[in-house]
Amino acid sequence: MNTLNMYKNFMEWLTNVETWQRFGESAIRIALIIVITHLIIWIVNKSIDRILSNKQTSRLPVQARRMVTVGRLLKNIVMYACYLIGGMLLMSELGIQLGPLLAGAGIVGLAIGFGAQSLVKDIITGFFIILEDQFAVGDVIQAGQFKGTVEVIGLRTTRLLSWTGEIFIIPNGMINEVTNFSLRNSVAVVDVSIGYEEDVDRATNIIQATVDKLEDENLAKPPEVLGIQLMGASDIKIRIIAECLPNTQHALARKINLQVKKALVENGMDTPYPRMVTYHRDERSGERNGA
Amino acid sequence: MNTLNMYKNFMEWLTNVETWQRFGESAIRIALIIVITHLIIWIVNKSIDRILSNKQTSRLPVQARRMVTVGRLLKNIVMYACYLIGGMLLMSELGIQLGPLLAGAGIVGLAIGFGAQSLVKDIITGFFIILEDQFAVGDVIQAGQFKGTVEVIGLRTTRLLSWTGEIFIIPNGMINEVTNFSLRNSVAVVDVSIGYEEDVDRATNIIQATVDKLEDENLAKPPEVLGIQLMGASDIKIRIIAECLPNTQHALARKINLQVKKALVENGMDTPYPRMVTYHRDERSGERNGA
Amino acid sequence: MNTLNMYKNFMEWLTNVETWQRFGESAIRIALIIVITHLIIWIVNKSIDRILSNKQTSRLPVQARRMVTVGRLLKNIVMYACYLIGGMLLMSELGIQLGPLLAGAGIVGLAIGFGAQSLVKDIITGFFIILEDQFAVGDVIQAGQFKGTVEVIGLRTTRLLSWTGEIFIIPNGMINEVTNFSLRNSVAVVDVSIGYEEDVDRATNIIQATVDKLEDENLAKPPEVLGIQLMGASDIKIRIIAECLPNTQHALARKINLQVKKALVENGMDTPYPRMVTYHRDERSGERNGA
Amino acid sequence: MNTLNMYKNFMEWLTNVETWQRFGESAIRIALIIVITHLIIWIVNKSIDRILSNKQTSRLPVQARRMVTVGRLLKNIVMYACYLIGGMLLMSELGIQLGPLLAGAGIVGLAIGFGAQSLVKDIITGFFIILEDQFAVGDVIQAGQFKGTVEVIGLRTTRLLSWTGEIFIIPNGMINEVTNFSLRNSVAVVDVSIGYEEDVDRATNIIQATVDKLEDENLAKPPEVLGIQLMGASDIKIRIIAECLPNTQHALARKINLQVKKALVENGMDTPYPRMVTYHRDERSGERNGA
Amino acid sequence: MNTLNMYKNFMEWLTNVETWQRFGESAIRIALIIVITHLIIWIVNKSIDRILSNKQTSRLPVQARRMVTVGRLLKNIVMYACYLIGGMLLMSELGIQLGPLLAGAGIVGLAIGFGAQSLVKDIITGFFIILEDQFAVGDVIQAGQFKGTVEVIGLRTTRLLSWTGEIFIIPNGMINEVTNFSLRNSVAVVDVSIGYEEDVDRATNIIQATVDKLEDENLAKPPEVLGIQLMGASDIKIRIIAECLPNTQHALARKINLQVKKALVENGMDTPYPRMVTYHRDERSGERNGA
Amino acid sequence: MNTLNMYKNFMEWLTNVETWQRFGESAIRIALIIVITHLIIWIVNKSIDRILSNKQTSRLPVQARRMVTVGRLLKNIVMYACYLIGGMLLMSELGIQLGPLLAGAGIVGLAIGFGAQSLVKDIITGFFIILEDQFAVGDVIQAGQFKGTVEVIGLRTTRLLSWTGEIFIIPNGMINEVTNFSLRNSVAVVDVSIGYEEDVDRATNIIQATVDKLEDENLAKPPEVLGIQLMGASDIKIRIIAECLPNTQHALARKINLQVKKALVENGMDTPYPRMVTYHRDERSGERNGA
Amino acid sequence: MNTLNMYKNFMEWLTNVETWQRFGESAIRIALIIVITHLIIWIVNKSIDRILSNKQTSRLPVQARRMVTVGRLLKNIVMYACYLIGGMLLMSELGIQLGPLLAGAGIVGLAIGFGAQSLVKDIITGFFIILEDQFAVGDVIQAGQFKGTVEVIGLRTTRLLSWTGEIFIIPNGMINEVTNFSLRNSVAVVDVSIGYEEDVDRATNIIQATVDKLEDENLAKPPEVLGIQLMGASDIKIRIIAECLPNTQHALARKINLQVKKALVENGMDTPYPRMVTYHRDERSGERNGA
Repeated sequence: MNTLNMYKNFMEWLTNVETWQRFGESAIRIALIIVITHLIIWIVNKSIDRILSNKQTSRLPVQARRMVTVGRLLKNIVMYACYLIGGMLLMSELGIQLGPLLAGAGIVGLAIGFGAQSLVKDIITGFFIILEDQFAVGDVIQAGQFKGTVEVIGLRTTRLLSWTGEIFIIPNGMINEVTNFSLRNSVAVVDVSIGYEEDVDRATNIIQATVDKLEDENLAKPPEVLGIQLMGASDIKIRIIAECLPNTQHALARKINLQVKKALVENGMDTPYPRMVTYHRDERSGERNGA
Repeated sequence: MNTLNMYKNFMEWLTNVETWQRFGESAIRIALIIVITHLIIWIVNKSIDRILSNKQTSRLPVQARRMVTVGRLLKNIVMYACYLIGGMLLMSELGIQLGPLLAGAGIVGLAIGFGAQSLVKDIITGFFIILEDQFAVGDVIQAGQFKGTVEVIGLRTTRLLSWTGEIFIIPNGMINEVTNFSLRNSVAVVDVSIGYEEDVDRATNIIQATVDKLEDENLAKPPEVLGIQLMGASDIKIRIIAECLPNTQHALARKINLQVKKALVENGMDTPYPRMVTYHRDERSGERNGA
Repeated sequence: MNTLNMYKNFMEWLTNVETWQRFGESAIRIALIIVITHLIIWIVNKSIDRILSNKQTSRLPVQARRMVTVGRLLKNIVMYACYLIGGMLLMSELGIQLGPLLAGAGIVGLAIGFGAQSLVKDIITGFFIILEDQFAVGDVIQAGQFKGTVEVIGLRTTRLLSWTGEIFIIPNGMINEVTNFSLRNSVAVVDVSIGYEEDVDRATNIIQATVDKLEDENLAKPPEVLGIQLMGASDIKIRIIAECLPNTQHALARKINLQVKKALVENGMDTPYPRMVTYHRDERSGERNGA
Repeated sequence: MNTLNMYKNFMEWLTNVETWQRFGESAIRIALIIVITHLIIWIVNKSIDRILSNKQTSRLPVQARRMVTVGRLLKNIVMYACYLIGGMLLMSELGIQLGPLLAGAGIVGLAIGFGAQSLVKDIITGFFIILEDQFAVGDVIQAGQFKGTVEVIGLRTTRLLSWTGEIFIIPNGMINEVTNFSLRNSVAVVDVSIGYEEDVDRATNIIQATVDKLEDENLAKPPEVLGIQLMGASDIKIRIIAECLPNTQHALARKINLQVKKALVENGMDTPYPRMVTYHRDERSGERNGA
Repeated sequence: MNTLNMYKNFMEWLTNVETWQRFGESAIRIALIIVITHLIIWIVNKSIDRILSNKQTSRLPVQARRMVTVGRLLKNIVMYACYLIGGMLLMSELGIQLGPLLAGAGIVGLAIGFGAQSLVKDIITGFFIILEDQFAVGDVIQAGQFKGTVEVIGLRTTRLLSWTGEIFIIPNGMINEVTNFSLRNSVAVVDVSIGYEEDVDRATNIIQATVDKLEDENLAKPPEVLGIQLMGASDIKIRIIAECLPNTQHALARKINLQVKKALVENGMDTPYPRMVTYHRDERSGERNGA
Repeated sequence: MNTLNMYKNFMEWLTNVETWQRFGESAIRIALIIVITHLIIWIVNKSIDRILSNKQTSRLPVQARRMVTVGRLLKNIVMYACYLIGGMLLMSELGIQLGPLLAGAGIVGLAIGFGAQSLVKDIITGFFIILEDQFAVGDVIQAGQFKGTVEVIGLRTTRLLSWTGEIFIIPNGMINEVTNFSLRNSVAVVDVSIGYEEDVDRATNIIQATVDKLEDENLAKPPEVLGIQLMGASDIKIRIIAECLPNTQHALARKINLQVKKALVENGMDTPYPRMVTYHRDERSGERNGA
Repeated sequence: MNTLNMYKNFMEWLTNVETWQRFGESAIRIALIIVITHLIIWIVNKSIDRILSNKQTSRLPVQARRMVTVGRLLKNIVMYACYLIGGMLLMSELGIQLGPLLAGAGIVGLAIGFGAQSLVKDIITGFFIILEDQFAVGDVIQAGQFKGTVEVIGLRTTRLLSWTGEIFIIPNGMINEVTNFSLRNSVAVVDVSIGYEEDVDRATNIIQATVDKLEDENLAKPPEVLGIQLMGASDIKIRIIAECLPNTQHALARKINLQVKKALVENGMDTPYPRMVTYHRDERSGERNGA
């Protein structure tokens, strides 16, 4: 009779209006959740495509391929996030208590938030380095105290090759201010010392004539003699600047140094050594010695 | 009979007063939510328009266009935020449990909060740089150790071009104290060394006469000789200042240096070399040598 | 009959005691909320008025106007906050679930908290700079490494004009320790070098006599010769101090330098050059050379 | 009949046992809340009074008055906090949903927590500076790199007056380690240079005799000659120390310097100039030159 | 009769439809939880396997074994996390209130989050050092100020052996920017000083000829003479660079130094000593002394 | 009749089984709370007593008294915390909604957490300084850049007296690494310069003989001559070390300096002055001058 | 009759099926909680034992005992944590509202989290220092700027004894990068100066012969002459390295210095003094003086 009773009760529950009402409402909500989840994924994917293809005029074909990678990464992140939240909504519809799951995730999230701050920051910064095209592979850049040619730009780290052969592996989150040396022409700056006893105008003319004759395939503009840069303790420094192709300024400065040195020597003006005026005095004489 | 029962129960539920009452209250609340959401969007948009057009007297037409951009950005942010919250209120009215969704968003928010702190700070600072018109494209500024001409002011990064051709890419959040060199006239400061044996008054007069004759299109006021700036170890430094147009002080200082040097040479006063008084002494004599 | 039933049920609901009881209680609570909200606004406004007018004796009329601005800002913040919370209480009375709204606000609040920390700190510090009257427009101050004349004190940033023409734009939150040069008389400090062979008392007397004759409209007290400040390697430094009007110490020091130099030259005491005692020795002799 | 029904229902509700039971319980709880709130305020006020009057033996009457101020401030904070929480308990008793209010307060609290960290820290540190009597108005202190006479100790900022007339306005939270120069006698430290050729014992005796004769109203103990402090490159430094009243060490050191210099000159021992032994050599001779 | 009643009631509860309905729903949910937990573990394990075997082309067999270790560690972490959350879901299904457990875990999580930030960061960074193959055992690297040969790469710390025998134990979280010296050829940089009176071209030719004859098994490319690197106060510095195998640059530079020194001596050009021009002058003569 | 009804209802409520059941359960829980609260206080107090008396063998009787103070402080904290939480449990048993109270406390806790971080850290560090007996009153310690004799060790700040009379007030939280100079014997380190032309062995013997004769009550071990510490530019430095009682090394070093100087002078070896080899050359001769 | 009614009601409650059902479920859950709590404690204890005994091959018996201590500490922490959480689960089963208790604990946890961050970090780092055997008592290590012999390794602080007798008390959390000097042989590095006029090969041979004859019980390998390390302004530096037992490099370097100095003097090569070439010139002659 118990079994009969149970059956009867079960049928009663089955035919109860609230049962079906609950089922119906649940079914509608589940359908809604699935539709909305996919709708959001579709909208976000489209937005990512449009943003990446519009905002960025890639300097290099390599860049274009990287954009595709970034886009795919972003879409994956969005997709997983949407499925995760949608799945949790479904589970809560099905009546599984999500409290513990969420609390567990919250604790893990806290741990991630604290411990992996710099990891998250690395990836966000890496993403913007690529998106904003701050530098490309092959550029000479400086980040903090590390200067070198960019070898690899990754989402988490960037690798630079210094001119002396070291590889610098820099987390992107450490790349705050970037100095890019490869985007514009460089300027070679040469300061030439002449003695105080020389005629500044004549020296300037000799230097100007010398640098005017200078020939170099990296020279972007004719060099210019700016004039007296500094009145030093023993010498006058005359500054020469020369715009040249990016990262060729050191070689050019060496060339200018050599030519100007030769020209000055030919004209009898050499680099002045440090100077000092000395007075010889007799100790404790109380007077000063004469000529 | 079950089906009949179900139908009966469903009708009973349908005609139940609480059902309609719940429906009615829900409908009113949904309408309220939609109206209020749009009202808030409308009010905030108006406020943004008024603030941006009133508070800012743009120095440049470029600025005006940027204001429009900023305004549109702000309005978009507000609109998406309102639709998001309004949508969530609607979903909760429709009976979808938002707990999981919110918890998920909370965890993501925590991760964003920790990992993207500097990103958010970049954008907020960028927004204020534009809003407060701290500097404009073409200004010469210094932020931290980076000095150059502003090339691009973005919401996240600012690009400076140094005079030697480097591009500095600086996240706005790193731009704390800004030094703007282009808003006011600069002052060229030249310190001229004269020997201790010279007559300071005569030297001052010669220098004053020289700088009075100076002609330069960038000169904003006649140069001024301030007097003895420093009593050095071997020389007296006399300071000259000359107000000039922004960022022309280096060229002007070179000119002043050249003219003053020539004038002093003409008057027989040259830059003094470092000096030292030497006493020759016989070792361990216990006495001091005479004259 | 359904309709009839519905009507009957509705009437039953309408005439139910709990319905009216709920309505009544709700109405009372809504009234309470509105009254309390306005009461709090009124009390806080009065408090702001009293605090601002009492605690602050403005140095400048400009200050008074700024106080009004600050007061209005504070009142606006309080009013909006009270209306916001009151509105939320009302909505919860009307049965709109505020959970999502609050959670959304919480996430936004978290983001603001993390990303806009420095913005909030800027405004709080700016508020206290004005309230405590730390400096006024026209004062010469130093904040960190930036020294200049205050041009603008804003709620978020302060602008200084350096004497060489740079504008420093400093977020208020970066202004920790402020040095204000304009509140008290400055002291010009001049260190005069005399040789070890001179009579210190005589030198002190000559210097004292010279500075006693000094006339300057900025001089607040007669200058004072403190005595031997330092026994250097080659010279004795005698310190002179002179209290003068704020920010006139550099000009005064130049004047003192000039006068003292003249007086010492007249008395046959000039600035001593660096000195060195040299022993000439024959290499590897094992003995020392004689007189 | 509806109205009649309503009235009947209302009466029924009114005479219902649960109604009164709820009312009764509520009334008891409200009374309890009010009593406990006032009790806590009274207890805390008494504790504050006892702590402030016991723990602190004020150095100055000014201090006593400040204690009163601090006590009143603390009592105000406690009173407002208790009324706030008590009021919230009452409102929740009256059935007003406090969730929104609290959430709003929580968000504001978060913003305050993050943005006003330094403000809170300023006030807490200020409170302890006064409570622990770290320094008083008129003391000479150093906090970080700022040294001066204390002018004002406030709850948020402390103002120092430097001896050259600058006012330093330092937020209390920036005052970590304080150096107080006014609590104990200072020590004037004078290092006297004598040549390597002099007899150290004789020099020590001369210096000791000189400083023994020194008279100064600020001298707390007879000066002491410690002996050879440093064997320098060209001289031996003999250290003299003299305990004196706080902040008089500079004037005393000047006096000692003057007296010792005179005594040494009288005894034929003067400050040695820097020395150098020079060897003249013929270039590339491969041999060394003879005597 | 009570017992009978209890039995009857118990049977009633047992045969109640809701009882079984609850049991049935619970059983389904429990099964769901178990299946989903294991599914997630299986999926994550597969993903870890694929990522580790694909993304990483190990330089060394040691690396491959380490990858296996890392994979196993990751799988363990995932497994424990899944079992933990699954277990909590089961417990909540069984009706044990998890609130306290979760709150306890939350507090512990908070403590871990704050106190063990650097521990978590160490492990995350260590994981990426291994995954990204930033350096291998035996490489010479520099992290911060510590440079040495890698001895052990652990998940939490890395041990370096300096060339002077110190062991540096560095937490991985402290390894931000890594400089790896072992991945690319090094460059030996030698700056040779010649006097200003020498012929730069001739010196360059001599040096070039010398380094062309240089033989060294570590030399990767023929050395190159770059030219004038610096016009110093007393000498001209000519730079030589030579690409060589990693970390052999110091030995090579010593060799070049020796050979070039010999060649210059043979050619009569030796390293110039510091130079100085001295003027002897009579004190206070007002004129300058003749030849 | 209403009153009658109310009375009847009240009696009904009073005699209702649930009423008494609720009361009974409540009473049991209240008793449980009170008992457990006191039990915990008793256990923690006993633990504190045992830990403090066991772990700490006090160096000074002062220390013992301080331990008692610390123990009493800890017990007070525990007692107040237990009463607070127990009181809150009781109030929640009595039906007062604690949500607002807790939320208020939470906000205050947040503010304390953020603003008073350093205060809490001060007290925790102070507690460990006393517990671990890091230093005692009278010890000479250095914390950061502040060195002096400990005057007061407080729970929040420590006061040092420098040898020149300054009082350093250091928050305990700022005391990270402590250097304690008073626990072990100090070592006086004296570097004696001798000329390159002297015989090092002979000099070492003379110095060793001198320091062997040295007598000083603070000397803990006979001084030792270590040998050549540095080959300087002009001199050889020979190091002497002498273990002595704590903080007597400066006086001892002065004594050693004096004795060694005398001994060396007696043996004809004096401190060498800086040396320089000078070559006189004719300018631009292209040749070198002969012997 | 009321009493009778109460009794009847009580019996009714007692015999009610739900009552017993609730009791039964509760009893099962309580048993489950107790069993699981102890199970977890047992599992964790076993794991701790296995990890500590496996992973660690102790260098010293002292280490083994410390491991036992650490294990016991860990087990205690786990046991208390499990009993705490289990107790809270039991209390919540018994119907005591744990909300206030948890909230209180949460606030305390927050305070601990913020204020005791560094304390927690100290202990965690201390735990890993012991577990990873980074250094042992008696090792010479450097942590930050503090170098000395390890005296005590505690869970919170480590004590070092410097060679001059200071005790450094360093919180473990401050020990980031550790340099351990006692694990590997040290290298004595001696740079010997020879003059530019000397034959480098001959000098190298003399030095090599000298160091080959060197005998020292601490020498681990024969010393090696590396060659020219630096071409200085006045001298050539030749580097000698010698591997020796840990921390004996200073004594060995002194010995090498002494022997090499003697050998060079015997061979007529002494340390070169600083050199300078001086040109005497007549002032303003416009010409250069002849030979």
